[in-house]
Amino acid sequence: MYPEAIKKLVELFTKFPGIGPRQATRFAFFLVNNRVVASELIAATHEIKNVLSCTLCFRTMEKTEKNGLEYCPLCRDEKRDHTIIGVVEKESDMSNLEKTGVFHGLYHVLGGTISPLENDSPKRLHLKELYERVERGLKAVKRLEVILATNSTTEGDMTALYIERILAPLKTQYPDLIISRLGRGLSLGAELEYADEVTLKNALNNRK
Amino acid sequence: MYPEAIKKLVELFTKFPGIGPRQATRFAFFLVNNRVVASELIAATHEIKNVLSCTLCFRTMEKTEKNGLEYCPLCRDEKRDHTIIGVVEKESDMSNLEKTGVFHGLYHVLGGTISPLENDSPKRLHLKELYERVERGLKAVKRLEVILATNSTTEGDMTALYIERILAPLKTQYPDLIISRLGRGLSLGAELEYADEVTLKNALNNRK
Amino acid sequence: MYPEAIKKLVELFTKFPGIGPRQATRFAFFLVNNRVVASELIAATHEIKNVLSCTLCFRTMEKTEKNGLEYCPLCRDEKRDHTIIGVVEKESDMSNLEKTGVFHGLYHVLGGTISPLENDSPKRLHLKELYERVERGLKAVKRLEVILATNSTTEGDMTALYIERILAPLKTQYPDLIISRLGRGLSLGAELEYADEVTLKNALNNRK
Amino acid sequence: MYPEAIKKLVELFTKFPGIGPRQATRFAFFLVNNRVVASELIAATHEIKNVLSCTLCFRTMEKTEKNGLEYCPLCRDEKRDHTIIGVVEKESDMSNLEKTGVFHGLYHVLGGTISPLENDSPKRLHLKELYERVERGLKAVKRLEVILATNSTTEGDMTALYIERILAPLKTQYPDLIISRLGRGLSLGAELEYADEVTLKNALNNRK
Repeated sequence: MYPEAIKKLVELFTKFPGIGPRQATRFAFFLVNNRVVASELIAATHEIKNVLSCTLCFRTMEKTEKNGLEYCPLCRDEKRDHTIIGVVEKESDMSNLEKTGVFHGLYHVLGGTISPLENDSPKRLHLKELYERVERGLKAVKRLEVILATNSTTEGDMTALYIERILAPLKTQYPDLIISRLGRGLSLGAELEYADEVTLKNALNNRK
Repeated sequence: MYPEAIKKLVELFTKFPGIGPRQATRFAFFLVNNRVVASELIAATHEIKNVLSCTLCFRTMEKTEKNGLEYCPLCRDEKRDHTIIGVVEKESDMSNLEKTGVFHGLYHVLGGTISPLENDSPKRLHLKELYERVERGLKAVKRLEVILATNSTTEGDMTALYIERILAPLKTQYPDLIISRLGRGLSLGAELEYADEVTLKNALNNRK
Repeated sequence: MYPEAIKKLVELFTKFPGIGPRQATRFAFFLVNNRVVASELIAATHEIKNVLSCTLCFRTMEKTEKNGLEYCPLCRDEKRDHTIIGVVEKESDMSNLEKTGVFHGLYHVLGGTISPLENDSPKRLHLKELYERVERGLKAVKRLEVILATNSTTEGDMTALYIERILAPLKTQYPDLIISRLGRGLSLGAELEYADEVTLKNALNNRK
Repeated sequence: MYPEAIKKLVELFTKFPGIGPRQATRFAFFLVNNRVVASELIAATHEIKNVLSCTLCFRTMEKTEKNGLEYCPLCRDEKRDHTIIGVVEKESDMSNLEKTGVFHGLYHVLGGTISPLENDSPKRLHLKELYERVERGLKAVKRLEVILATNSTTEGDMTALYIERILAPLKTQYPDLIISRLGRGLSLGAELEYADEVTLKNALNNRK
């Protein structure tokens, strides 16, 4: 019973991650009743054309006038440790790691995870580029650490395992290639009474 | 650390109802990674210019080529009962009442509620138009029911009370003006053990 | 791996309403580590033998030295309106109604609800006693109101319906028997946007 | 308005961990309406007198007819590794570690945590006994590992720190005393997007 424009907006917002029909409807009316925000949304969405992917780490970066500029500021930062590559599922994971202040390497944004239900899922990810990047790095500096910073979920674990297999030949060739995963154990605030068995097992094995 | 266009999108989405920085970030990356949806969002948001307000009930309506067309299809529907006006806070409340299938009158969308913190809040609402509409109706048909279908919240109750006061002079003049409120009591699934005192009191007083 | 006494306590507490094995374990260790509370629990549980049911309304009452005392203080209270009977599922529902301060009649505690899965469920409830109590009352005072204050759940509605059928013959015979149910509609704090269809329908039909 | 026996039960159940007045009331009526369970509860609570504490690890144990039996079955089990002591806050933590199947040492149940608000809190815990147990062990076997398996909470961390300080002199004297803590990092199912900074920092530092 709503006007076409509103129906179309509701339909689009329903595609947004985590948004159902009710909230999509609220968003549509919010825009209808806040036309300034609507104009700004149009303008800001237009600007997406100026968002490029870094050709090294695949995180988003600003398009600038300088031609040939293909690497993001972080990948060009000489103060970062170029011999450590933190492999993350998505860009926001990267910014969370960055906030810890303890990681000083470069990143590699996979763009998702291996999906057990989707045969083609490895092709969606920047895996070939990771392999080539690691190989190139090993030829240049011999020593490299790849930290598989995927989620502690089934998909994250499958993805980490998949990458370990892909990089296995390089590991044979270059013994100084270190492949590590984020530590598993008790998270902040965890109580033994409520911890699951796998986490407790990890916490015991990784005691220090 | 994100490109300007993404930062701007995050900032805008944070203004959306119920959206915090984390989900706003997910929305921004969703648009960056789904450029077709982004284009469609621009197009659909542009179409908002074709959304008008009905000059009688203030719900949204399609702009059409016919000039002078100011009333929405529902307000022009002769099968609806024009002697009953359901006053709602916002348009989505209206469509929820419509779904019940038991309301056959017309609506009046207030566009919000009286806010105790904002002196000017009555001016934001279509209250003057409601008064004039009711007065006009009473002159024509003598008998009219106004159902105050506001939320059962402090703001909704205050708004209903405010409207009752506004319409009081008309009620004195036209004894056949009926002003009612939605029934209060136990909602579907409510258990006495967990019901609040006010609801139980209403349920007892409104027993039947 | 726990001592027998603890295992037995865990097993017993698991039978308590809403208690799973984890919380039952915490309760058992709580008693083991708080032996004063444990002693008090034994003493207080012993005292249950002094808890009787009122033979009129079936709520719990103190056993006292006076022989023949079968009615609870509330049922003997002459200031209460003995021509109104509030039928509730369980005793705690009763004390919630009492808190509203608007009910001044007597109660009838059913002791549960009709269960669609259990053929015998009507026998568990004090239904025969309700029939006899209402009949006795009508013979004496002619006018009586029975308020079916069951929950607004499937079981509560089924139970109310069942009682209406049981009392139907009395209603034919005594036109001044009023059978009512708690009012249905918006509960305190309810918003139209989130209200279910049945509740909205009730709220519209019960407007006033 | 409830009988004394019920009021007393409600009052007692309110003292149970995590139980508020509403659930305490449900428990009381549950016992009143299930007198067999009530009798069993009395009997089982009586049996608590047969629950002793192991004088070595302080977990609960069965009182048996054999005099002088002071150690629990686990502490007497020669198949367990007596050179590893897992220090836990409470007995249920212990049984959770036991379920992992990877811990084969003995335990030491502290009986709580150091509380920053309570000066006397160290005295409530079995700390002196831990010190003596570790010292005795080191004299006998030279090599010992103490795993501080406290919760990953402020209280748990404070308690672990406190124990480290207490055992520090022994560590100076016996270099083969190892004091470790449960590993910190991502728990099962954790996503980087929702992980807190401290956990991510731990996960990075404890990568392997």
